[in-house]
Amino acid sequence: MPKPTVMPLPPTQAKAVESAPRREALRHVIESQQFTVPLLMELFERSRGMEHVVARGGTLDYQNRIMTALFYAPSTRTRLSFEAAMHRLGGRVLSTENAGAFSSEIEGEQVEDSIRIISGYSDVIVIRHTEEDGARRAAEVSLVPVINAGDGNGGQHPTQALLDLYTIYRQRPLDGLSVAIIGELDRGRTARSLAYLLAKFDRVKMFFVSPPQLQMKPDILEYLDEHGVRYELESDIDRVIGEVDVVYQTRIRPERVRDMDGLRRYAIDSKVVQRMKPDALILHPLPRTVELDKSVDADPRAMYFRQAMNGLYVRMALLTMLLDKEPAAGSAWW
Amino acid sequence: MPKPTVMPLPPTQAKAVESAPRREALRHVIESQQFTVPLLMELFERSRGMEHVVARGGTLDYQNRIMTALFYAPSTRTRLSFEAAMHRLGGRVLSTENAGAFSSEIEGEQVEDSIRIISGYSDVIVIRHTEEDGARRAAEVSLVPVINAGDGNGGQHPTQALLDLYTIYRQRPLDGLSVAIIGELDRGRTARSLAYLLAKFDRVKMFFVSPPQLQMKPDILEYLDEHGVRYELESDIDRVIGEVDVVYQTRIRPERVRDMDGLRRYAIDSKVVQRMKPDALILHPLPRTVELDKSVDADPRAMYFRQAMNGLYVRMALLTMLLDKEPAAGSAWW
Amino acid sequence: MPKPTVMPLPPTQAKAVESAPRREALRHVIESQQFTVPLLMELFERSRGMEHVVARGGTLDYQNRIMTALFYAPSTRTRLSFEAAMHRLGGRVLSTENAGAFSSEIEGEQVEDSIRIISGYSDVIVIRHTEEDGARRAAEVSLVPVINAGDGNGGQHPTQALLDLYTIYRQRPLDGLSVAIIGELDRGRTARSLAYLLAKFDRVKMFFVSPPQLQMKPDILEYLDEHGVRYELESDIDRVIGEVDVVYQTRIRPERVRDMDGLRRYAIDSKVVQRMKPDALILHPLPRTVELDKSVDADPRAMYFRQAMNGLYVRMALLTMLLDKEPAAGSAWW
Repeated sequence: MPKPTVMPLPPTQAKAVESAPRREALRHVIESQQFTVPLLMELFERSRGMEHVVARGGTLDYQNRIMTALFYAPSTRTRLSFEAAMHRLGGRVLSTENAGAFSSEIEGEQVEDSIRIISGYSDVIVIRHTEEDGARRAAEVSLVPVINAGDGNGGQHPTQALLDLYTIYRQRPLDGLSVAIIGELDRGRTARSLAYLLAKFDRVKMFFVSPPQLQMKPDILEYLDEHGVRYELESDIDRVIGEVDVVYQTRIRPERVRDMDGLRRYAIDSKVVQRMKPDALILHPLPRTVELDKSVDADPRAMYFRQAMNGLYVRMALLTMLLDKEPAAGSAWW
Repeated sequence: MPKPTVMPLPPTQAKAVESAPRREALRHVIESQQFTVPLLMELFERSRGMEHVVARGGTLDYQNRIMTALFYAPSTRTRLSFEAAMHRLGGRVLSTENAGAFSSEIEGEQVEDSIRIISGYSDVIVIRHTEEDGARRAAEVSLVPVINAGDGNGGQHPTQALLDLYTIYRQRPLDGLSVAIIGELDRGRTARSLAYLLAKFDRVKMFFVSPPQLQMKPDILEYLDEHGVRYELESDIDRVIGEVDVVYQTRIRPERVRDMDGLRRYAIDSKVVQRMKPDALILHPLPRTVELDKSVDADPRAMYFRQAMNGLYVRMALLTMLLDKEPAAGSAWW
Repeated sequence: MPKPTVMPLPPTQAKAVESAPRREALRHVIESQQFTVPLLMELFERSRGMEHVVARGGTLDYQNRIMTALFYAPSTRTRLSFEAAMHRLGGRVLSTENAGAFSSEIEGEQVEDSIRIISGYSDVIVIRHTEEDGARRAAEVSLVPVINAGDGNGGQHPTQALLDLYTIYRQRPLDGLSVAIIGELDRGRTARSLAYLLAKFDRVKMFFVSPPQLQMKPDILEYLDEHGVRYELESDIDRVIGEVDVVYQTRIRPERVRDMDGLRRYAIDSKVVQRMKPDALILHPLPRTVELDKSVDADPRAMYFRQAMNGLYVRMALLTMLLDKEPAAGSAWW
């Protein structure tokens, strides 16, 4: 067994470590605020290209790359959207549907050790974590890019906000938009992330429509004030629905309002739609319950299924932006 | 941000929408009745070809296609059989083992929205649903072909019946067959689906062997009467076991008969096998418990593991029939 | 429907059955004892090659091969490590995270039937079973190679021991090593498997460090006695920590010692590390809790994350050794 002691890393690995990321701006995707307007425009142009790639049946350009979908809590649609994106790029997928329930029985085990290990097996990690800073903690120790696919209850879900904005971008100039964001806004992960993104564009005005006790939290409002973005707090959907270019509807959980009647006042059905602008856009992150009636589905202004499809394109584009700058897998972090 | 308003679909997508399905007969696979004899023969000839494809190690012909296995209730073997079929064709797989437990916490959410979204990510969807009309409802809104991998308790499991029939077809002419179908027939999804299929062939005679209270339901018997198919209801396995060409054994759940003795009267072991025809075929959809003894496994008439393997070939053939007529992915339904 | 009766197998299948395995020594991977030193050296040389394959971004050499990861109990990291290994080889993966919870509701169903079916869909099966002889029973009926990914509580986890040993091999000659194996040794699957492997090398000395009631069981000690391997039983970590070349730390579950103080006496932190040899190697199979403090992570002697990465290389190498001798898939076993 003649073996030299303390091996150096093999040469190709050593090289991989040296080649630093070229685009510092997008090493990880953790929160929507991190995106500048130029970065958003690059992402959206890439996303448009992905529409054509998918229409042609996908590509094999990334066929040696591995994405790990590490979901500590299940979210079938978000997970499948990311996995489809990687497959349409020709890539490969490792997946866990419910790592929280399935992982080691050890208490006190932390996400850091798992990420150190799994990032050695992957070229990119998509994580849904149950704690608000789970994705950031993962990114801090990961060898490879980390994408936040939703963390905690009041946390972020940045790729949802990106696909929401992309859906508007495909139909409208983003500058000068008036947008109603409706629902349970204090805890609405997608509503909060979208507000951060919209604030980056000129002359945008947001209407936050919500029962008063569920209104947008001060952190967002302060951010908007600081950046000189116009907004109004509303509790009556009727006062804004006819004026806005975009209606972004979200869910209100029944247990958070006093009665079903309270819920119905914020619901959108074919009657409410009649009062909207003829070229308004109706978005919803889905899944939905009573707040968005099926009678709206046939309306040409309904964008929510197209929005879900745009999730595929935006996630493909994001993956390429993260993977293109990565050296070959197997680079050591120790 | 200069962007034109209301974008048209990109040209390749528009084209994909126009290219209509060529073979109307097999857009979705929902129930066994939908198969005509010519369609069955096309399927079986393709399945024979797939035996050779697998023996050569598979193909890469479908390497850009995505199959989603959407299982609302777990069924490891059926799911893995479909997934292996897609992989042997060179394709890609999105998968959820237990969407019922893992999906959104929203009550009242319906399969239609999920299918509208997921069918945008896939080229074909394999669904196991917990409700009897789940697969049909999925097919009604899906952009892409839907295959029923079992729905509800008294519903259908058409690909199981197809592989059962293929197993007989590989060994015998299907016209003129006498077949004993044994077990808990009133709720037997596979027994019911197979009866529908066998009825399509000439001079077939079926013996339904079951405790009287668990006999085949009137819907099947009326169907057979209408189509002039001969059948007999039996409660004594001994009266038919020596006469039939095919013994299709299925499970009886202990809680549905009064005593274990009742169960044993319908069980097949090496002694029962001795009374069968020397060239009889013994089938079972598996998994099994006491109704089919391991002592039968070595008998050359035992077809049940070959039957499971045939599931791979038949599912590969079905997938190609559904995918060959599909345009490239990414076609819009909205 | 003119069909001859009782079809022969198609010619390519018949040929596949005739072509016997060339390397009898490694048909399945069930326990660490089965590995001879020449086989270990072949494995480790292949593993070194895999470091380069991964650094170059993987290979597509095995792109038609299917590995099934059949986990009756969840183990996210072990499963993802095997799946990443198969993907880096270009292969395909079927996977079940938690077959125990998800499988058929049938009681008394046995692993044999499942394996007979699933081995018809796969080129290699990786199984984690809840019973101690689950992997061996699977291997007995499988058409294709079976790898034990951990069975039972006091069973084996041979690929863990192989990657542990490979981690040492990459840094040190294996002959003449002194190794401290620390923790809950009576039930320590990885500690037991490693002891079997180390015993195959010359002049190795092992120190088993454990609370007396959790010491290594007689079966291992008798094996070492028979093979003339030196070992000592210790309950005081301080008496060995400064002398050994390798410290193999494992977990002690709190419920197995009387107090947390008992636990802390076997823990390793930056203070304990100071007393180790300057070129000692610190290994741990992970996950960890209090027995290995994070303050050790930055020490150059800490090998445990590299060890996890080595799991990828060793599993890739094992898969190629098993797959290279296999005929094309689809060979019949009946």
